[in-house]
Amino acid sequence: MPKRSRTVFFVSDGTGITAEMLGHSLLTQFEGIAFTQVVVPFVDTPEKVDACLRRVAEARAASAARPIVFCTLVDDAVRAALRQADALVLDFFEGFISPLEAEFSIRSSHAVGRSHGVAHSKEYQHRIEAVNFALAHDDGLGSQDLARSDVILVGVSRSGKTPTCLYMALQFGIKAANYPLTPDDFERGELPGAVAPHLGKLFGLTISPERLSEIREERRPGSRYARLDNCRYEVDAAETLMRRHEIPALGSTTLSIEEIATRILQAVRLERRVY
Amino acid sequence: MPKRSRTVFFVSDGTGITAEMLGHSLLTQFEGIAFTQVVVPFVDTPEKVDACLRRVAEARAASAARPIVFCTLVDDAVRAALRQADALVLDFFEGFISPLEAEFSIRSSHAVGRSHGVAHSKEYQHRIEAVNFALAHDDGLGSQDLARSDVILVGVSRSGKTPTCLYMALQFGIKAANYPLTPDDFERGELPGAVAPHLGKLFGLTISPERLSEIREERRPGSRYARLDNCRYEVDAAETLMRRHEIPALGSTTLSIEEIATRILQAVRLERRVY
Repeated sequence: MPKRSRTVFFVSDGTGITAEMLGHSLLTQFEGIAFTQVVVPFVDTPEKVDACLRRVAEARAASAARPIVFCTLVDDAVRAALRQADALVLDFFEGFISPLEAEFSIRSSHAVGRSHGVAHSKEYQHRIEAVNFALAHDDGLGSQDLARSDVILVGVSRSGKTPTCLYMALQFGIKAANYPLTPDDFERGELPGAVAPHLGKLFGLTISPERLSEIREERRPGSRYARLDNCRYEVDAAETLMRRHEIPALGSTTLSIEEIATRILQAVRLERRVY
Repeated sequence: MPKRSRTVFFVSDGTGITAEMLGHSLLTQFEGIAFTQVVVPFVDTPEKVDACLRRVAEARAASAARPIVFCTLVDDAVRAALRQADALVLDFFEGFISPLEAEFSIRSSHAVGRSHGVAHSKEYQHRIEAVNFALAHDDGLGSQDLARSDVILVGVSRSGKTPTCLYMALQFGIKAANYPLTPDDFERGELPGAVAPHLGKLFGLTISPERLSEIREERRPGSRYARLDNCRYEVDAAETLMRRHEIPALGSTTLSIEEIATRILQAVRLERRVY
């Protein structure tokens, strides 16, 4: 039997990122269906609604099963128009705005495009500063002002430090530096001199030697750097250093970037600077 | 009259990032209320539910108005427990899982923690590769393999290219390079030699000279680089170059990183590699 398939639209008057994230979380609860996903952002005029309806109708015509439409739409008229589609339309705002209006005893503004921090806001500036900080303190660069960091990730090369730092900067406005633990450090049996004074800010990322070897092999095929026995040695030595200095640590092997970043925030009791 | 205030909890069995994004979009529809926001991630055991309920109860006791609890919880028992809180509890999954089960004629798996790509998935690898690409091609670095990029952002220094590229990499798995347009290019009246061969991949970011001057002033106070007349000259010259080469362009001044990234994807008709 061929795998069942469905086309899924994420329709929004904004970027569609929120609709897509929530819709995606829901879809992952259903196994055995192949979803074709289409994001339709900035649907905020009757013309764009019509164009969107045409795309949904085309998908409907091309498939035995009707499409799913997830939407985050502030405007009631736009939402009503979309409801005309021959599709299962699920709106993520509709059911929640009314109870919130009742709770706050005020009408919602029904203003479009407010979900992400705008360019001039303080939150936006936190994010940009945090990105600049992460870039200036990536992989052991710029160790002179590590004291300004909120957290310093340490771990062997390719344990996931850089993407995690960038994600924490963009999503949470957290100033995250990262510093590699290298064979030099393991021979000395000591933390790198640059990070040792900031013990309270250190957080360790670790990874299974097998996975590390795979990742390094893609980068430098056939190298000693990528060899499994070397990865075993490095991971073991790094974990020993972390334990000895009581650095909180997390295995990144089976976690998403979002999960790693969230667990670090929780572990070091950092507050997001951005919501 | 003091501004009204409310404590808002985002509770999830996963990272809470989805609950927080959707809840935040809803809250921005209500003006005049100061929200204190608390994310409570990884609530997936009875003990963690109890701890979470205690935090909600404390917030309730400390305020005249009951808290708001947004949640994305897969487990019915966990959700039922949370409903006991003296709070307005709004669950983002509850109303949607049932219609989807009916639509697909299958039961959902009710499995926790599936919303973000896991470490070994192809999507995850796309993201990591895209981050590495963005870092290796940031600000004119590594111009030799620009042909591998999905899009190349051009614009004056501090027009928002770097955070946008990193966001596109992390969120969409898009390989985005960025290359600065500098006074040297303006004097020659030509695009930088490294990007000229890739005209079809170029996308321009522009910015108001006033905002640019503010941003540069923070970075290099009192410099010619930051002076308003210099910013006017650079922005004008960059926009002239973009127009002459028919490079699609976008003003970043009042947009969030999410909006810029989404509009670029739309303009250059790129498909996300990651959902």
